[in-house]
Amino acid sequence: MEFKDWGEENFIHHLKQNFCAPSPLVGIGDDCAVIPGENENAWLITTDALVEGIHFLKEEISPFDLGYKTIAVNVSDISAMGGEPKYAFLSIALPKNIDQNWICSVIQGMKKACEKWNTSLLGGDTVGSKRDLFLNLTLIGNAINTKIKYRHEAKNGDYICVTGYLGNSGAGLKALQERQATTNYFQYLINAHFHPEPNPQHGMWLASQEGVHAMMDISDGLDCDLKRLIKASQTGAIIETSRIPISPQLTHVSAQMRWDPLEFALAGGEDYCLLVTIAADAFDSIQQTFKEKFGVPLFYVGQITHELQEVVYQKNDTVIQMKYTNFDHFK
Amino acid sequence: MEFKDWGEENFIHHLKQNFCAPSPLVGIGDDCAVIPGENENAWLITTDALVEGIHFLKEEISPFDLGYKTIAVNVSDISAMGGEPKYAFLSIALPKNIDQNWICSVIQGMKKACEKWNTSLLGGDTVGSKRDLFLNLTLIGNAINTKIKYRHEAKNGDYICVTGYLGNSGAGLKALQERQATTNYFQYLINAHFHPEPNPQHGMWLASQEGVHAMMDISDGLDCDLKRLIKASQTGAIIETSRIPISPQLTHVSAQMRWDPLEFALAGGEDYCLLVTIAADAFDSIQQTFKEKFGVPLFYVGQITHELQEVVYQKNDTVIQMKYTNFDHFK
Repeated sequence: MEFKDWGEENFIHHLKQNFCAPSPLVGIGDDCAVIPGENENAWLITTDALVEGIHFLKEEISPFDLGYKTIAVNVSDISAMGGEPKYAFLSIALPKNIDQNWICSVIQGMKKACEKWNTSLLGGDTVGSKRDLFLNLTLIGNAINTKIKYRHEAKNGDYICVTGYLGNSGAGLKALQERQATTNYFQYLINAHFHPEPNPQHGMWLASQEGVHAMMDISDGLDCDLKRLIKASQTGAIIETSRIPISPQLTHVSAQMRWDPLEFALAGGEDYCLLVTIAADAFDSIQQTFKEKFGVPLFYVGQITHELQEVVYQKNDTVIQMKYTNFDHFK
Repeated sequence: MEFKDWGEENFIHHLKQNFCAPSPLVGIGDDCAVIPGENENAWLITTDALVEGIHFLKEEISPFDLGYKTIAVNVSDISAMGGEPKYAFLSIALPKNIDQNWICSVIQGMKKACEKWNTSLLGGDTVGSKRDLFLNLTLIGNAINTKIKYRHEAKNGDYICVTGYLGNSGAGLKALQERQATTNYFQYLINAHFHPEPNPQHGMWLASQEGVHAMMDISDGLDCDLKRLIKASQTGAIIETSRIPISPQLTHVSAQMRWDPLEFALAGGEDYCLLVTIAADAFDSIQQTFKEKFGVPLFYVGQITHELQEVVYQKNDTVIQMKYTNFDHFK
């Protein structure tokens, strides 16, 4: 059987079966692995690969943005469990004829991102590649062990929230593909695609709140990631589509292009904000304090239900059918 | 300028300049990064990438060996600083048409290696690749902070030793390339190439000895790695070529094929044993105890000198000229 027919989820399941993490370690299945340390500290470890032709096209992304994004997507995973990014390790496989200045710009983008998130790049591996450029970053963060949030802790009745507008990055990618970059609105969306801005402060503060039950980052789209969360938590979810936060820019561009902004919001991916479930009785206070503390809203989008592993979409209290094809690296 | 003309060493120098490790962390430049922890513990972190067409050919290496080797080469780096491997993180970029069984065998090879070295695979990333298979492993080990050995601590007069036969892997690769696998001697060399066996017990015990000054693993050949060690230590070295340990199998095959076994021993690479410098007055005792403890010899091959960054080769006390081309991923 070819890998694409077996699929990524089956492969990850196969890995989980073969590699069980000995307690109290947490292994495969969440945004990061967790290694409890001395006192109350724990290490969070995540790793993300970016492959030419799959995650980026060298002709489209600027090398600076590519470097920045390599760090940012990993920062998002550390944030998703309430950690602070600390130490980065870069593996880079380079075709021999790649331009030196281009690679130095990648490094400058990484440096900017490391400075922004107070992260030290401590090592890595430089190797050749026959054809395609590969970048892999492993990021180690730290967290307070008892405050770490997992994706399997959502409870029936929790409010489902997100920490940012959804769909900008996916629409930015579509704008690039369709060679639409004519106005500032398009530029805003394209920038969201090239320059994700996860916020570990959001993650750390939310993780410190007892009322927050489950947390993960949205990297593959709300639909796909919420399904992972409810599968891990053995719950269901209902999403009120009218509450999904769409940026004014995406609204504007969608109207102009006759795009459906919800499609990007649910299946576009690469939003790199947080998906959070919060105990209903703690929600008001957490939402208000979040707004006061960070100056941006915590968006309510739906509720956790006891229906097993089902996501129901409704619009103004009427159930609607949503069918989106999530991005698959292997198709 | 194309990357191959700029070169890997310049690129690593560029990375070092851009990413300084804040003390007491140790960053780019040794086999592992070092993160001191609580009490006397420290974390060692290393990462190694294996790229199809550069490090292996899918048609030649068995998938089981590829998986095993992916772990082994990283275990070698942890051993090289005196650490014990603990936690592994795998990134794998897969072409969509790769065979499921083939990949499952890679995973079985990794599992075998993880079991052998008591290492837990705790996470990673699975992504697509347009064409080539790419494997990256990050390995975290632990060590006693005050016992960690670095490559920059060699002292004038130290005895230079290695912990195993050199050149087997390089000769095994040549045998593969020349389609020579006709006898058990060839098979032994090919097995050394596909199935490296670093020994963390050697590294940990040597690291615990005060008389051991500098240590690193031999992954790119004694010549190349010794040059790195003396550059880091600001010393020179003299190597007595008649003392370089050559296996009976390599001796036999070299005689048959009219190969020069020294060429493999100095520049073949992928030996994955240790290069150690030991204070002259501690050498006898360390060598004897090593033999008693592990049942294998610690081979003396030369001495550290004060000549700056020069490796002198001699044969029976007469200086000889050696010219080998080290393997370069980018040429």
